Amino acid sequence: MSHPHPELGGPPVLPEGGLRVVALGGLGEIGRNMTVFEYDDKLLIVDCGVLFPETDQPGVDLILPDFSYIRDRLDDVVAIVLTHGHEDHVGAVPYLLRERRNIPIVGSRFTLALLQAKLKEHRIVPVVDQVVEGDRVSLGPFDVEFFAVNHSIPDAMAIAIRTPAGLVLHTGDFKMDQLPLDGRLTDLGGFARLGQEGVDLLLSDSTNAEVPGFVTSEREIGPTLDEVVRTAKGRVVVACFASHVHRVQQVLDAAERHKRKVAFVGRSMVRNMGVASDLGLLRIPDGIVVDMKEVERLEPARVLLVSTGSQGEPLSALSRMANRSHHQIRIDEHDTVVLASSLIPGNENAVYRVINGLSRWGARVVHKGVAKVHVSGHAPAGELLYLLNAVKPSNLMPVHGEWRHLRAHAELGRLTGVHNIVLAEDGVVVDLVDGLASITGAVPCGYVYVDGLEVGDVGESTLRDRRILGEEGFISLTLAVDSVTGKIAGAPQIGAKGFTEDPKAFDAVLPLLEAELDRAAVEGVSDPYQLGQQCRRVLGRWVNDTYRRRPMIIPVVLEV
Amino acid sequence: MSHPHPELGGPPVLPEGGLRVVALGGLGEIGRNMTVFEYDDKLLIVDCGVLFPETDQPGVDLILPDFSYIRDRLDDVVAIVLTHGHEDHVGAVPYLLRERRNIPIVGSRFTLALLQAKLKEHRIVPVVDQVVEGDRVSLGPFDVEFFAVNHSIPDAMAIAIRTPAGLVLHTGDFKMDQLPLDGRLTDLGGFARLGQEGVDLLLSDSTNAEVPGFVTSEREIGPTLDEVVRTAKGRVVVACFASHVHRVQQVLDAAERHKRKVAFVGRSMVRNMGVASDLGLLRIPDGIVVDMKEVERLEPARVLLVSTGSQGEPLSALSRMANRSHHQIRIDEHDTVVLASSLIPGNENAVYRVINGLSRWGARVVHKGVAKVHVSGHAPAGELLYLLNAVKPSNLMPVHGEWRHLRAHAELGRLTGVHNIVLAEDGVVVDLVDGLASITGAVPCGYVYVDGLEVGDVGESTLRDRRILGEEGFISLTLAVDSVTGKIAGAPQIGAKGFTEDPKAFDAVLPLLEAELDRAAVEGVSDPYQLGQQCRRVLGRWVNDTYRRRPMIIPVVLEV
Repeated sequence: MSHPHPELGGPPVLPEGGLRVVALGGLGEIGRNMTVFEYDDKLLIVDCGVLFPETDQPGVDLILPDFSYIRDRLDDVVAIVLTHGHEDHVGAVPYLLRERRNIPIVGSRFTLALLQAKLKEHRIVPVVDQVVEGDRVSLGPFDVEFFAVNHSIPDAMAIAIRTPAGLVLHTGDFKMDQLPLDGRLTDLGGFARLGQEGVDLLLSDSTNAEVPGFVTSEREIGPTLDEVVRTAKGRVVVACFASHVHRVQQVLDAAERHKRKVAFVGRSMVRNMGVASDLGLLRIPDGIVVDMKEVERLEPARVLLVSTGSQGEPLSALSRMANRSHHQIRIDEHDTVVLASSLIPGNENAVYRVINGLSRWGARVVHKGVAKVHVSGHAPAGELLYLLNAVKPSNLMPVHGEWRHLRAHAELGRLTGVHNIVLAEDGVVVDLVDGLASITGAVPCGYVYVDGLEVGDVGESTLRDRRILGEEGFISLTLAVDSVTGKIAGAPQIGAKGFTEDPKAFDAVLPLLEAELDRAAVEGVSDPYQLGQQCRRVLGRWVNDTYRRRPMIIPVVLEV
Repeated sequence: MSHPHPELGGPPVLPEGGLRVVALGGLGEIGRNMTVFEYDDKLLIVDCGVLFPETDQPGVDLILPDFSYIRDRLDDVVAIVLTHGHEDHVGAVPYLLRERRNIPIVGSRFTLALLQAKLKEHRIVPVVDQVVEGDRVSLGPFDVEFFAVNHSIPDAMAIAIRTPAGLVLHTGDFKMDQLPLDGRLTDLGGFARLGQEGVDLLLSDSTNAEVPGFVTSEREIGPTLDEVVRTAKGRVVVACFASHVHRVQQVLDAAERHKRKVAFVGRSMVRNMGVASDLGLLRIPDGIVVDMKEVERLEPARVLLVSTGSQGEPLSALSRMANRSHHQIRIDEHDTVVLASSLIPGNENAVYRVINGLSRWGARVVHKGVAKVHVSGHAPAGELLYLLNAVKPSNLMPVHGEWRHLRAHAELGRLTGVHNIVLAEDGVVVDLVDGLASITGAVPCGYVYVDGLEVGDVGESTLRDRRILGEEGFISLTLAVDSVTGKIAGAPQIGAKGFTEDPKAFDAVLPLLEAELDRAAVEGVSDPYQLGQQCRRVLGRWVNDTYRRRPMIIPVVLEV
């Protein structure tokens, strides 16, 4: 089992007849957001998604995969193939298309429909090629076949890529619900057929590799939801992911049975359910959907809201309900709120804050911790074993997970007899040559931050400054120096933000600074930069001695 | 069921013969850190603990309960009674003793020993009164009886408080392991005796009220730990809470059986295990403990480290091992790391970062998600029902939990037939008068922040500034104005931190600022504040239009 070393150098030239695989993206998760396959100087991109920032990336809106590895070779890209429509798999497409508009995008109907709604906001009209499971298309030297997989969004697909270098199967995100609500099973039979043909390299979803056993069927959530809606006395609010069409379908069905009207709350929920309904993936009972104005006129016991905000997003409608700042919905002890969703690590505090807020006003809160209102969209260990045994790959590259998940998946591969297992972080180059996959080097792979309208102007040093400012605040020290005489003009001015609320905090240091300036004058120091640094040192030492804190200290010396 | 309303006013004078209860502390959790009982103008304090900051309280080291409610009445305090030695129950004692040194502290042997070690660092010698379960002492008008309870630290106690107003039972943190390692059971029989006497008010631990069933016995962890140590090929590192003596005992026992030497890592681990061993609560096999220097000389297969850092604290030894910055331990694929601990909500990202780091270097990582290496220290619903049925309180006040936990506990109370249940946030006043507990008002109850050496100089406005600075950074604009002519002296200077890495970012706004200053000059504006604000507005609008960001903008106008 190989794993990357910091000392990895740039990869060698890909031997003729070899296939190169490089995942880009990162942030703990490996190989989820974007994977680049190279054969015969042509590139095939599978997925192009965004990452969401963690707390040590403050102020960042989105994180893009680092395109620098392919930036000079965009003309060699034959297509972007999308496995499914989740943001972490499609969200960066608009940013890549800004660099080359006409890269063909290949995907299923729902995936492309969601993408096109997003691209419209970016005013981009893409070149698309809609496919369906069973299709087999040639994209440059890549012969690509599509397989149905079951996931927490409709129309997800796995992808088999044939080149003379061998057969690669990339599962995308998947699970194997054996009683899926739409009857669309993960095509295990198709995978077994590939296995008989001989799969040289399997890239497979590791998200739940640490979880033993099998997923509960999505349909087992239905009765719980139904019971909650049936017994609720007042309003019911169900929060879930805006792309989980089957979950919303079960909610709509329960609302219909119990004679409640439904309003969709949240921009992405409204948009996605519109798309799903247009494509016939969501059945909306006649006349059941109303708008928020009508909700206010209805009896609470006739109302059901389907809302975003299940991850505790502070600006979401659900968070506003929880802290009673929502302008239409005032939560009280008659209300029932269902969080029919997972709890993404890192969001716990935000989600519990919402649950506590709702509980405080007396609402009944039903969440996956106390009732069966959510199942995962990813295959646990038991299902991964089925897949491994069907595919029998010669090489396994666990992807879609953090290191802990990849290690667990590797162990499953070992147990099922896979001979060669490659653990490669994003940016690490894996070459499949003569049937053997191995790490041959690494390419640059950082994070590219989107903050507001700009891409890339915020980098690690800005974030480092933000972290210091956010933890400690800053103190500014402003001086004016006469540019002719080199003497200090006027008194030094100290300002601070995020440091203290004590208005007299700096009274004691002013004499020290003045003494330092006098000393500088005696020594004939008049260079503004040097004066600023001397004052910074005096102030910094005093702050550390007095407060045991390390705020950012910023001297500004004006020449007047 | 009553709950607080924002409109609660100050409480009325406590009627003669009534008992008042006020919890102080807060931050989501209710009634955990400090509770003040008042009878006949005397105050009894139960616990005095710290809270740990959440991500929206950046830079804060500790949070103290708000002492302002009792500050003017410190002479009326008859004692601080401590239920157990965890930081969230004792950590604020040094800060309260700073305000009155001679408040008697009452607690069990281990609790007082831990407290005294801490007070030594603060150079405080306390007045202490050591008690043991079964003791009954008079503290002013309060007749206090102590009961053994089982928790994740030795020597924890529940407290019964008798006054003419009635009998109150305060459980403190507890669970009811029926096979505890030290044989010290929660005294359910004692609670039943109180129940027969008639408990007027029960304050009980709600932490696990949402969790069905019963705790797994602490002793069931032993075999898992033993198996991990037995089969490990290289070093074993076990991380757990530094006060969990029984957990450490099981680790020491496994080390002894499998002939490994043990080193304690982390200041609090070393200190607490010293205290526990001195008191005979921890049995350290002869010659088993070594220091880190000796560890380096031993074969890895003969080494076991017991470490802090189980919550992913970034500066802990465990985190440094995970990112290979530890100067003695270089983790590799022969190592085994056990996280024998809970995962406190909010710490998930930090803990998973440690697990991923260790996994990346190939270590085997065993944690509660994949093996039975931790059990909770708090009673789940099944045990709470036992307690409620034994105590049969007339009034129940669920404490020690967030709103979601209190609601769940209240429901258990309702199911067992408790007639009156009071849900009161910290700062809300509950009076027990004529056998009925009810909310009568609220007292000030904010957070008091410790940052470095100072207590209280950092408040909400400083934290608000830190949050803005941490998310968006700042832009400073410095001007000099001639104090005689009122004219701008020299060019305005723009600086920024945490905003962008583009050195030319502000080139385009300089002409706008100069135009604004020209306009001000024409209009005769020379007031430095007004000039600064005009520039701030121009710069702010431009930044928002150009970047869609909202950094803090700080004008500084120097008069020279």
